[in-house]
Amino acid sequence: MAEAVRLDKTARQLRMLSDALDSGRLGPVRRLVNTLSPAEIGNLLESLPPGKREVVWGLVDPEDDGEVLVHVGEEVRESLLADMDPDEIVAAVEDLDIDDLADLVEDLPATVIDEVLKSMDRENRERLEQVLSYPEDSAGRLMNPDVVTVRGDVNVDVVLRYLRLRGELPDHTDYLFVVTKRHQYLGRVSLASLVTHEDSTPINRLIDDEQPAIDVGEGAQEVARQFSDHDWISAPVVDDNNILLGRITIDDVVDIIRDQAEHQAMSAAGLDEDEDLFSPIRRAFRRRMLWLGVNLCTAFIASSVVSQFEGTIAKLVALAALMPIVAGMGGNAGTQVLALMVRGLALGQIGASNVYVLLRKELGVALINGLVLGTLLGIIVLVWFRQPGLSLVIGTALTLNMLTAAAGGVAVPLALKRMGFDPALAGSVILTTLTDVMGFMSFLGLATLILL
Amino acid sequence: MAEAVRLDKTARQLRMLSDALDSGRLGPVRRLVNTLSPAEIGNLLESLPPGKREVVWGLVDPEDDGEVLVHVGEEVRESLLADMDPDEIVAAVEDLDIDDLADLVEDLPATVIDEVLKSMDRENRERLEQVLSYPEDSAGRLMNPDVVTVRGDVNVDVVLRYLRLRGELPDHTDYLFVVTKRHQYLGRVSLASLVTHEDSTPINRLIDDEQPAIDVGEGAQEVARQFSDHDWISAPVVDDNNILLGRITIDDVVDIIRDQAEHQAMSAAGLDEDEDLFSPIRRAFRRRMLWLGVNLCTAFIASSVVSQFEGTIAKLVALAALMPIVAGMGGNAGTQVLALMVRGLALGQIGASNVYVLLRKELGVALINGLVLGTLLGIIVLVWFRQPGLSLVIGTALTLNMLTAAAGGVAVPLALKRMGFDPALAGSVILTTLTDVMGFMSFLGLATLILL
Repeated sequence: MAEAVRLDKTARQLRMLSDALDSGRLGPVRRLVNTLSPAEIGNLLESLPPGKREVVWGLVDPEDDGEVLVHVGEEVRESLLADMDPDEIVAAVEDLDIDDLADLVEDLPATVIDEVLKSMDRENRERLEQVLSYPEDSAGRLMNPDVVTVRGDVNVDVVLRYLRLRGELPDHTDYLFVVTKRHQYLGRVSLASLVTHEDSTPINRLIDDEQPAIDVGEGAQEVARQFSDHDWISAPVVDDNNILLGRITIDDVVDIIRDQAEHQAMSAAGLDEDEDLFSPIRRAFRRRMLWLGVNLCTAFIASSVVSQFEGTIAKLVALAALMPIVAGMGGNAGTQVLALMVRGLALGQIGASNVYVLLRKELGVALINGLVLGTLLGIIVLVWFRQPGLSLVIGTALTLNMLTAAAGGVAVPLALKRMGFDPALAGSVILTTLTDVMGFMSFLGLATLILL
Repeated sequence: MAEAVRLDKTARQLRMLSDALDSGRLGPVRRLVNTLSPAEIGNLLESLPPGKREVVWGLVDPEDDGEVLVHVGEEVRESLLADMDPDEIVAAVEDLDIDDLADLVEDLPATVIDEVLKSMDRENRERLEQVLSYPEDSAGRLMNPDVVTVRGDVNVDVVLRYLRLRGELPDHTDYLFVVTKRHQYLGRVSLASLVTHEDSTPINRLIDDEQPAIDVGEGAQEVARQFSDHDWISAPVVDDNNILLGRITIDDVVDIIRDQAEHQAMSAAGLDEDEDLFSPIRRAFRRRMLWLGVNLCTAFIASSVVSQFEGTIAKLVALAALMPIVAGMGGNAGTQVLALMVRGLALGQIGASNVYVLLRKELGVALINGLVLGTLLGIIVLVWFRQPGLSLVIGTALTLNMLTAAAGGVAVPLALKRMGFDPALAGSVILTTLTDVMGFMSFLGLATLILL
């Protein structure tokens, strides 16, 4: 509750900015925009409708352009890039970190990519090409090859001298990596331990070799899980021969976690998480059409079930008014089980060893819910229509549909995951089709049997 | 796709553990469990049904007990605490960091809290009491008072000598905080700059005073937003007088982001994010009952609309089979707009300045979707029932309901947020009631006007 009452900083800035834009005073807009971090500017640009968005984008300090592009969704990024000429794009992206550049590069026009590659020195170009050689959503794509390595057979003072000579460290450097001559990963030494130990301490004594290195082929989701399970800030990435290739830092992991959550929330409604709030109508239409089309097909399945019982409905029209209740309540109950399952599957908490216990529990909950709500529904229907038979039919049908919802809510996401589909995306449409069909069939079927 | 194919580490561990448990060999179970981090053990315990859960909990190294308790959901935590005697609980939690202890303390029995407080030294007790004095979900609750502070008027070598004397630093220390004599926050100095600068460099020259300190009363969500927008690892927390109180670290922020995402996904289905996968049937029943009860009430609203048209349905029973299509498609389209709005509102991207542009866009998308899908639906119905009037009615009704879904999808979450309710929780039930009512009313109403 308090959340909603509190004035949201972004919404406030948006309001100020919008007022300044409307009044045509671009000076204050520029000053306001350039007090923000690139991520905040990205969020602001996403919340601006076309027209205003281009104006504000033109006012962003060119130095921040690259970072801002990294921080916006794909659709918005395309709209921003469309507004820049090739030279501007090259200037914007050439100073980015390798991992950020790798993230961006696919959205750039081919000619611009060539220019960017040409503008880089050979070492960085090779690093970029290496990062790009790994599949998207793998540790290789997330890593930054810019790491500080030391040898284990020296003392603290040697390392400190080396660091002073080297100067600035890469962002979020909390550990230095200890490697062999052949650049094999041995372990890590924290900056904290460097500054809390005497100059004469050998590095070997400070090595933390407990943290396993991440394999370059590991999936992004698994990387995120490990970071959050172990409270890491950064982690080394190695290849099959244990050669240190780079490191992944928590800021990129936070982005993965956010993207993943967004993906789950959006795909439950059949949306792409990269959808721009203000995407052009034609594009938004195309994006949503597929999902609605699929739902139209499944609606016909439910509809054809009802049409089998037209004779029954013709004799007792009250059935038509009541049948959506049975179907809808099954859908609601199923959605609850589905949400629990999708979370459990995402956390790896559900497998062959516990799914039967889970199914039994959900069937138990559904049975009680069905009996309680079915009785309640039966009583209301009795008061409304004064037909005890109808009450019995609707109460029984509701209980049956609740049980169907529980069984389907457990089985559907599990089956989808086994078949390699995203349970969050396809789960709800399949499950509601199931509960619609079962709801109509049990209610109208029982009515045909008992009431006619 | 690849995500599902890849064998999930947790699921694999779960399988091994479960097999070992089934065979009754507790030795291997103990060894397996104690190779895991506390967060991983927590995840594993959450995925174990009652019975097995208690057995594994008994095998966890008592040293990890406290950390594990921090990492599980509230319901599971209660089930674990119920299994411990007071002495065990005190021993488990007394070595926790203050912020973690503050997080746990409310779930502990009152007698245990007294014991824990007694077992702490005075300084830590006062710190805990201070943290607990701030409201839940505020920066004050998230912070850890254990910080390393230095003065600005000394050189690097003095600080390094002090750190060596002090020994170990708190976890995730990436910056030292520079304070005045009265402990007012002046800025921060990174460990990276300490190790890359000469001994004789004055600390004042290394101070980064650009990062604003977090106000102790700031909300957890806003703290999380700032961390992810600025890529912070840690941030200082101050009171109204700029006195340094503690610091917040990224690992707690990652937890907030995860909890927030979970809350959103679960509350869309009317669930509590703390729901245990294996909560006792009676408790799960009670938790879900309320939501299903609300949905039952709204189902009656839709049902009563249909019953107004019983005369029409009696004359043309096909209407009963087709009406769920119109209602359901409106619900699907509305859910898409709702998902987009909930995300936008959570990111602060939607306000008075852009909501009309957004509404216009969504109405445009809905109109095209309605016309295209309405025509398609009309053609199918024409082939099925060979009544051009019925085709016209269903096509028009679908378009009208799509427009309702768009308007409602924008307006409902916005209105809920204004009134201080969670749009993710209440949005879907209100919106689908709206699209059900409008779907039935427009379809059956138009049919009454045109076909009878």
